Parts: sequence; C-alpha cells; structure tokens
Amino acid sequence: MSKKKKELQHIDLTKIENPDFLKTLNYKELNLLCDDIRKYLIETVSKNGGHLSSNLGVVESTVALCKVFDFSKDKIIFDVGHQCYTYKLLTGRNLDNLRQKDGVSGFQKTAESPYDHYEAGHSSTSISAANGMAIARDLKGEKYDIISFIGDASITNGLAVEGLNMCAADKKHKVIIVLNDNDMSISKNVGGFSKMFRKFSNSALYCKTRNAYVRIMNKTPVGRKLYDFTAAIKNWLKRHLIQMSLFDYLGFGVIGPYDGHNVKRVVQALEKAKKMDKSVIVYLKTLKGKGYKYSEKDNEGTWHGVGPFDIETGEFKADPNNISWSQQYADLLFEQMNNQDNIYTIVPGTMYGSCLQKVFDFYPDRCQDVGIAEEHAVVFASGLAKEGFHPVISMYSTFLQRAYDEVSHDLARMNVNATILVDRSGLVGQDGNTHQGIYDEGYLYSIPNTVIAMATEASETKSIFEESFKNHGVFAIRFPRGGFPMESLKKPAVDVKFGSWIISKEINKKENCLISVGPNTNKVLDLIEENKLDVKVIKAIYLKPFDLEMLKTLLDFKKIVIYDAYSTVNGFASSVSSKLMELGFKGQVILKAIPDTFVDQASVKEQEEMFGLEPKQIVELF
Amino acid sequence: MSKKKKELQHIDLTKIENPDFLKTLNYKELNLLCDDIRKYLIETVSKNGGHLSSNLGVVESTVALCKVFDFSKDKIIFDVGHQCYTYKLLTGRNLDNLRQKDGVSGFQKTAESPYDHYEAGHSSTSISAANGMAIARDLKGEKYDIISFIGDASITNGLAVEGLNMCAADKKHKVIIVLNDNDMSISKNVGGFSKMFRKFSNSALYCKTRNAYVRIMNKTPVGRKLYDFTAAIKNWLKRHLIQMSLFDYLGFGVIGPYDGHNVKRVVQALEKAKKMDKSVIVYLKTLKGKGYKYSEKDNEGTWHGVGPFDIETGEFKADPNNISWSQQYADLLFEQMNNQDNIYTIVPGTMYGSCLQKVFDFYPDRCQDVGIAEEHAVVFASGLAKEGFHPVISMYSTFLQRAYDEVSHDLARMNVNATILVDRSGLVGQDGNTHQGIYDEGYLYSIPNTVIAMATEASETKSIFEESFKNHGVFAIRFPRGGFPMESLKKPAVDVKFGSWIISKEINKKENCLISVGPNTNKVLDLIEENKLDVKVIKAIYLKPFDLEMLKTLLDFKKIVIYDAYSTVNGFASSVSSKLMELGFKGQVILKAIPDTFVDQASVKEQEEMFGLEPKQIVELF
Repeated sequence: MSKKKKELQHIDLTKIENPDFLKTLNYKELNLLCDDIRKYLIETVSKNGGHLSSNLGVVESTVALCKVFDFSKDKIIFDVGHQCYTYKLLTGRNLDNLRQKDGVSGFQKTAESPYDHYEAGHSSTSISAANGMAIARDLKGEKYDIISFIGDASITNGLAVEGLNMCAADKKHKVIIVLNDNDMSISKNVGGFSKMFRKFSNSALYCKTRNAYVRIMNKTPVGRKLYDFTAAIKNWLKRHLIQMSLFDYLGFGVIGPYDGHNVKRVVQALEKAKKMDKSVIVYLKTLKGKGYKYSEKDNEGTWHGVGPFDIETGEFKADPNNISWSQQYADLLFEQMNNQDNIYTIVPGTMYGSCLQKVFDFYPDRCQDVGIAEEHAVVFASGLAKEGFHPVISMYSTFLQRAYDEVSHDLARMNVNATILVDRSGLVGQDGNTHQGIYDEGYLYSIPNTVIAMATEASETKSIFEESFKNHGVFAIRFPRGGFPMESLKKPAVDVKFGSWIISKEINKKENCLISVGPNTNKVLDLIEENKLDVKVIKAIYLKPFDLEMLKTLLDFKKIVIYDAYSTVNGFASSVSSKLMELGFKGQVILKAIPDTFVDQASVKEQEEMFGLEPKQIVELF
Repeated sequence: MSKKKKELQHIDLTKIENPDFLKTLNYKELNLLCDDIRKYLIETVSKNGGHLSSNLGVVESTVALCKVFDFSKDKIIFDVGHQCYTYKLLTGRNLDNLRQKDGVSGFQKTAESPYDHYEAGHSSTSISAANGMAIARDLKGEKYDIISFIGDASITNGLAVEGLNMCAADKKHKVIIVLNDNDMSISKNVGGFSKMFRKFSNSALYCKTRNAYVRIMNKTPVGRKLYDFTAAIKNWLKRHLIQMSLFDYLGFGVIGPYDGHNVKRVVQALEKAKKMDKSVIVYLKTLKGKGYKYSEKDNEGTWHGVGPFDIETGEFKADPNNISWSQQYADLLFEQMNNQDNIYTIVPGTMYGSCLQKVFDFYPDRCQDVGIAEEHAVVFASGLAKEGFHPVISMYSTFLQRAYDEVSHDLARMNVNATILVDRSGLVGQDGNTHQGIYDEGYLYSIPNTVIAMATEASETKSIFEESFKNHGVFAIRFPRGGFPMESLKKPAVDVKFGSWIISKEINKKENCLISVGPNTNKVLDLIEENKLDVKVIKAIYLKPFDLEMLKTLLDFKKIVIYDAYSTVNGFASSVSSKLMELGFKGQVILKAIPDTFVDQASVKEQEEMFGLEPKQIVELF
C-alpha cells in the first residue's frame, strides 16, 4: 500500500496487511478510509449476511484504536465480538469469505490471526477476561495495554458488573475499558454526563483541593461540624440533584463522553487513556447502524444480525414461501396468551430475533424484555410462577447456557411450571462455534424434573406447545434456526401424547428401526419411501422423558439407528442407547448424533455432511 | 403461649405456633426474646451443625420483620436462605431436628410451612424472584408486601445486580429490599452514608425544592446558563467529594443505615418502608456471629457453616484422625504452587471451606478470592490462561453450576488449560437439595474438551492433580464432602495414566465385573474380598474421557455393574452403558447411580441407602 501525502487516495481494503499504515494517515485520510470501510461492510454483509448495525457503529472507533495502539503487542477484546469486522479488515483479513466454511469468522478467533487475542460470542465476558490478562501481564512484568471494548447493552449484564467490580478493586492492574454507548440499554443517568464534567474530571487541581478541604475541616471541632454540615448538603445533592453512574459507584475515572464517530476525538481520548497508570473508562457515544439509511432508523434490532439483503431497497432476500420456526412458536404463543390470562412472556434482548414483536405489542403488561440478563430472566420467571403465573421464557439455546444454574435451582428444583422456548437449537451454521445450539439437550438432560421436546414438523407444534402449560414442571421446547415451507402449515394438527413418540412408518420384518429427532426426520422418511427401504421410522418427539413403552417394543429388532442432528451425543442419543443396554437389547445400535466437539462456521448442510448426519447419509446405514 | 404484660417472661421457643404473639410484646420483652433465641440457636447448631454466624447476625431483624409484617399474607425471601433459623422458630418450627432426615430443613422450604414462600440455597436470587412475585401480585390486583432479605456479600453478585437493575426500572411494582450489611464484602462507599443523610433523604421538602429549581432554571436562557454552571459544580462534587453507592446509581430510595441489632430502630425503619408506595431499600448494619464470642471474632468464615462443636471451648467435634478431601487437594495445590510459578488460584468466597488459607497466605500475589462471583471467576481464569498462567479454580460442585456457560464458552471452547477442583461433589447430606453435588458430572459431560476425574483414595490424588497441569484443556477433579482416615496417607502414591482405569481385583471366570467411581469403591472392594466373591473390580478414575481400551476387554463378561454413588445416572454411568451398547456387549448391565432427581436432606449414608447405593447393597448384586 503506497500512499502519497496531501493527496486523498483510496486504500484497497482487500489488500491491507496490517494496521501500521494508519500511523501516517492524517484525519482527512482516516475519514475517507472510514467511509470506504463502511461501504465495504454494507456490501459484504448484504451478500454473506452477518452483523451489520454493530459493525457500522464502530468503524471510526476501531480505526482510532488501531492508530493509537499497536495490537501486535497490545491486546483488545471485543465484547461479544460481533463488531470486529473493521478490526479484521485493518489487521489483514479481507471479508469476502466472511462466515463461510474455512473463511473468516464473524467473531474474533485466535487461530485466525495473531491480532486476535481472545474470543467471544456470548456477551459481557471482556472485562473479566481483560482483568485476568492484566494480572498475568503484571505478574510477568511485561508492558502493554489491554482493552475491553464493550457496548452499553453488554455492560449491564451481571457478569460484566462482576468484572467491573473486580477491575475497580484492582485498578492498579491497568485495563482500558472502551464503552461504546449506542443507547441500546444503558440507563440515561450514565448518558447524562455533561461537557463541563469532562473539563473538571481530568484536572488534578480539584483532587488536591478536595483532599486539602477534608484535611483542614477535620482538624478542629468547628471544622468537623462545618464538614458534617457540608456532608449533609452533599448527601442531599446526591439524593436529589445529581445523577449517578455505575462508574461513579465503582470509583472509576472516565474520559468522555465523546462522539465515537469523530476519529480525532477518539484518538485524543485513547491517547489520554494510554498515558494513565490505572484502569480507566473511555466513554464513546455512537449510532448503531451508522451510515446506512435503513439500519440507522432501526429501533427494534431488525438490522442486528441479518441474512443477505438488497442494498438499495433494504429488503431481505428471504424466501417468502418459508416461515421460521421462531415465527411458528411466536404465533402459537400469541394465540395462547389470548386464551390464557396467566401467561407471562420473558425474553433476554431477543424479541426481534424470536419474532415476538406482535406478542409484545398486544400484551405489553404480560411481556418483559429484560435485556442481556439471562439469569435474571429465569429467576424472575420463577417468582412469577410461584405466584400463579405461567412464564414462557424465549431464549436462544446457546444463551440459555448462562442460566443453567437458575433453570435447575430456581425452576426445576421447586418443580414450578414454566415453558422454555429454546430457539436456534441444533447447528446454527455461519455464526460458528460460539453460537451452536447443540448442547442444551445434554445440559437440560442433567436437570431433574425437566421435559424436553422437539417437533419434526409444524403440525406437531400446537400439541407440544399446549402440553407445556399442563402440570409438567419445566418444559423445554427445542426448535432449530431456519424454517419450513409455509405449505406445511396446511397439514392438520397432530395430537402428540405427553412423553410419547410417533410411528411414522411401519414395516414388514422386525429388522431395521430409525429413532429420529427433529425436522430432518421427514427428509430421511422421504428418502426411505423413495428407496422402498423396509425401515420402521419413529419420530422421537419427547426426548425427556422419552417413550419407554415404545422402546420396549423394539427389543426384537436387529438394528436400531438413533438419529439426532440437533444435539451432541451427550443427550437423548446416549440416554436411549444406555436404556437399550439396560433393557437387554441384543441387536446393533448406531448413534448418529453430533460428536462431542465444538463446531466451526459453515452452512448447516456442510456441518451435517462433515459428521455424516445429512439425511442421505443416514439412509445409507440401512 | 400466655404472656402477662409488664412482667418479663421467657417464652418457650419450642412451642411457638406462629408469630402473632410478637404484636403484643414491648421492646424489653422483644429484647429478652432475642437473647433467648440466640442461646437456643447456639445450642442447636452446636449439636446438629449448620449455619451459625449468619443466623446470629439476623435475630433482631427477623423478630422486627415478623412484628411489622404478617407473613401469612406478606412474603419474604431470604437470599441464600441459610439465615432463616429465627424465622423458622417464630413461624412455628422448632429446630431440634434441624437438618436431619424428615426434619426441618436448613433453608426455606415451601413444603415445610405456609410461611415459606420461596426457596433458595444458591446466592443472589431473592431480588429477581421478588420482582417476579411483585409483578404477579400487581397483575392480580392483590395487596401485600414482598421482601427480599439479602446480605452485602450476595448483593454484589451479577444476578443480584441484574435483579436490582430491573427492580429499579420498575419501582412501581413495590419490593422492599432489606440489606443486611455485615461488612462481608460490600464496598465502603455504601457503608459511608451519614446520619444526616437519613434525615434529609426521608423528607419530601427536598424533592419538591429540587423539582422547582430545575423547572425555574430551565425557563430562561440565563437560568439555563446558571443551571449549567451548577451542573458543573454538581459534576465536580460527584467526582471528588461524594461517595456513591450502587443504589444511588440505580435511583433507589434508602432507609437507614440503622443498627440491625436494635429491634426498635429496625421496626421503625420497616414501618416506614411499609408505608411507601414504591420499591425501597432498608439498610441495616449487623455483626455476623453476634453474641457468641468465637463467631464474633471470626474474619475468615470459620463459623459460617459448621459441624457440631463444644459451646464452651469453641472447638469443633471433628475426628482428629480424619483429613478432608478439600484439605488433601489444598495440600497438593500448595506444593504445586511452590514448584510452578505460573499457577494462579481462584475461589468464589470459599477459601475457608476449601481449606485454602495456607495457599492464600503463602502466595498472595497468585491467589484471588473473587467473592460470590462464580461467572467472573471462570472468565477471569480464562484471561489468565490466555496469557500463560495455569488457573486453578476451586469451587463447590453446586456453585459451579452458575458458571456452566463460562466453563464451556470461555474455557473449553478455546481449549485453554485450567484445573477445576470440584469440591463437595456427590451427595452432601444435611444441606439438602439446594447443595447436592450430584449434577456436575452430567453437565460437565455435555461440554467438549473437558476432562473429568475422581480419585477413589488419597494415593491416587497426586497423580491426577499433577496430570491436570499438562496439556489437557479443562480438567475437572471431583472430590466429595467429608474425608478419609489420615492413616491412608501413608500408602505410596499410585500413578494413574491419563484417561485410564485401574484394575483392583482380577478374577477367575469372566462373569462379573464392577466399574466403580469414587471412594466408595474401596468399601465395596473390602466387602467383595470379605465375601470371597469372584468379581473383577475396576476403579474408574477417569470419567471423561474414560478407558475405552479397558472397556473393550470386558465384552465377554456376563454382568457389568456400573456404580457411581457420586452422580446422577446422566453422566458417566449412562455414557459407559451407551458405549457398551455401541460396542455390542451382549451381557447384562446394571446402572447403580443416583436417579435423576433432587435429593432432600439426610445423612449421606441415609441418602445412599434410599437409592440402593450403600456398598453393602452393591455387593448384593453379585
């Protein structure tokens, strides 16, 4: 990349090798670069899908970070990590194959580049991790900066607050926290810092004055009385005039707030932070979705994580003949809330992702979006349940992990009734290993008093969903990312008895049997019919408790394949196989489930193929 | 309970039926009652064991709560719940059979009394639950008070802060939060409220003045300028003169701080809180362990949860010839930290419980007690690990649940090396269903890249522990509550190869085999020798990955019993059984593990008997 001074020149973004070139650019050039990056991001995401709004919001601040720091030795942790596209570009990764198999991940990934120092995908880990890294650095006697880059929605999560608390107690192990406030959730209190405050807060004079004041006042009885009086005033001010921030509470120094889209401002703030010798917060105000008219106007999260779209019209290229599983359960929930007054719906910031806008619009008093607070969501539900409400908790499988303890201790242990809609269960494709929904079956299996069910097609959903409101304790309904043809909604509803399986295809000889989980079942079934195979096909709708009576009827078979493309083996598959062993089954059992591993990004089809879980690979077993 | 006025009379604590009698007692009588309760608590706990310090700290505040509120309709949630002994007494439960099988639980239990409205055992759930209950109450249009009674250590946990945050956003759904500050962890900032502040904070005048001031100042340009100037002053004050509290940040009203051992004061504060129409915090300062000389002086948590002790001498009645498993691993850790500079030890408030004082004393720079912040503990460990340290996380099995997501997402997924000492794995006896350590095997099984191991005797611990520092990713070492005879430390150390099992007893005929987990193995082995049974006994040291090669050598056996008295079936037992099925084993498999259920308090022996898991019951299977 050659660059002549004083002459504005576009940089070829796909040919950046490292961020060193930023050091020599002036602010005009940096601004041009930011504009170019923004266009490139919109183009890339419009083709590959990905996180748009969050990335458009941090272009300038990322450029400023890479200008001020040297991330070949300094470390940066992007909280959640979905806003790292500009960083990837600047550190030599072009995004043409973003989120594709063997391509660039949509999140930080240490194996991908020496510039990635940590990884995430779940929210609010960056401060705790930075705290650990800082202590390690100082114990080793090394010198470099560690930055946690975190949004206002993430910082109010309990884990982040625990991290802040520790960081504050331990300010000498310096961490720079860059707070990217795009007004998504943080309280207005924090947003209310005034311009004047900045001038004062960075001045040493006031610290000295204050200390001297306290010293003098406490020297004489009269002084003490006066001090007490001013203390009274101060307390009154505290209560009634002054708005507090979480950072004040924790005693942090704050630089900002500054306009996070003003590269120069951000560079100055970061340079100041760099010079400080203890932990500090750099406070930036940004606009999520900045620079693209559709995402700028978005208040609901429509443009948070997106599939391919048309740049001109802002229309998503989704198949209009498909309906998502999320939408299907949202529709059922809407209906049920209409029929039943004591249902209360709770989501942790995923109202849009789980298609629940309509439910929230119609029943505002019986809906709550608690923000990124999965643990609170579940205990809050438990409180509602103890007082006669039936909570419906809608949560992505991968985020439900964070509430494992609460599902066990606060719901299942007290055996209260609650429906958990486990959205995006199974393989999630391009989001990669931080977002896979393939573990919930296993971890929910370890919790007593817990029901787990998964429909194979839309016609079964109503029966399952309605059953969850009966007296069964915690009732987890899994459904995958993606959807199914609208067509299939026309099929009449199937009644699924609690705890039971459904025989989809009977056979002539008791030889081959397939016990199959989730929507792939129907694809396998079609192939079996097509190939005229003599295989008994069982739809395993209830995964826990499962249909023990039906299992017992299978003991004479020669071969049983247990097929679950929506979970690792450590759930339903190994439990059924173990039960077959206990029952004395003498035939062959083949487990076809996802192996006990973390799964990188690729399309779901590619991921299934990799594990021999594509429907056609299953049919080959017979 | 008859009671004459004006005459101080002792109340028979074992005959209280409900708290109604408190309404008529004067403060002198209440004080006498408190003294009697305190003596009774010390006596009871000295016999049965239990939580002492926390209960001695809340005698007066509990009496005051029961005087002001009517808990046959009002609701109270004791956070954690271990401090509810006085409440149990006052609501008609005598504590003679405290923590015994079929006796009174050491925690709130809704099945035990209509006065218990919620249950806990894990920390920091009370605010979220109260929030849920309050919204349910208001939706139903009912009128009663809901109280969260929470300690200063619990309120800094992330879940509690999430709850506070929601409660603050939603103050109209009234909850009374009684903060019991015994100076265990909350920041001094909060403790710094002055006496004057109380006078001001409860006065309506100041609210009015403030609002008028803002209104007037904003009416004219000059006024706005003046307001801006005062805003600058206010910001300066905020930064340099005024100490902030978390409650200020969240905008709560605070009543107190008051001396929580002054019944009259607490009654007055609660009456004020009762009259308010929005959520409020009642702030009490108390002394943990109050009224017993040994527990009053305790700074380490020695008197938190205790076994039987001698009241006079304060000496615990533990068998001096026994050593606890916690102590054994603490000793190994001490040695290893001496040998290896890059080990860093982390505990979430359980330093004393896990016998780690010596480690902390000798290596203060490489130890951190993060308080009740399990999630932070694990992510913090992950940060250390990414920078070359080997973290050792010591955590009780039941509390590790709260960090499930972090163990998966932040340790295992990135495959960093970390040792987790899973203390109190298995049945825990008297603490009951909130504290059982019988699920970690199952939930850790669901996480890829995770090693799980458990010694059957002390001689194996060194080898397992040292192995955990090699390159195996997350390495969980389970060990039970309780201990073993000091004697057995004399046995020479056994070398356990990674991932392997040990054959303890060979046989003549390939008929019977026992695959056994944990220390009970040796008891069964003794009985087998005693009865001269022809059973091959295998010590299953590594539970994940397990010894597949050895398992394959067992395929000719007629009967295999898989025995794990330290976990539910949803872990090692069903995984091995499932693998036997896949391997085509044709014999009989019997799973002897804890069923998939929550287990109430009793002695460990009683609990084992209940499930047919006592060693003598296992031998009967052959």
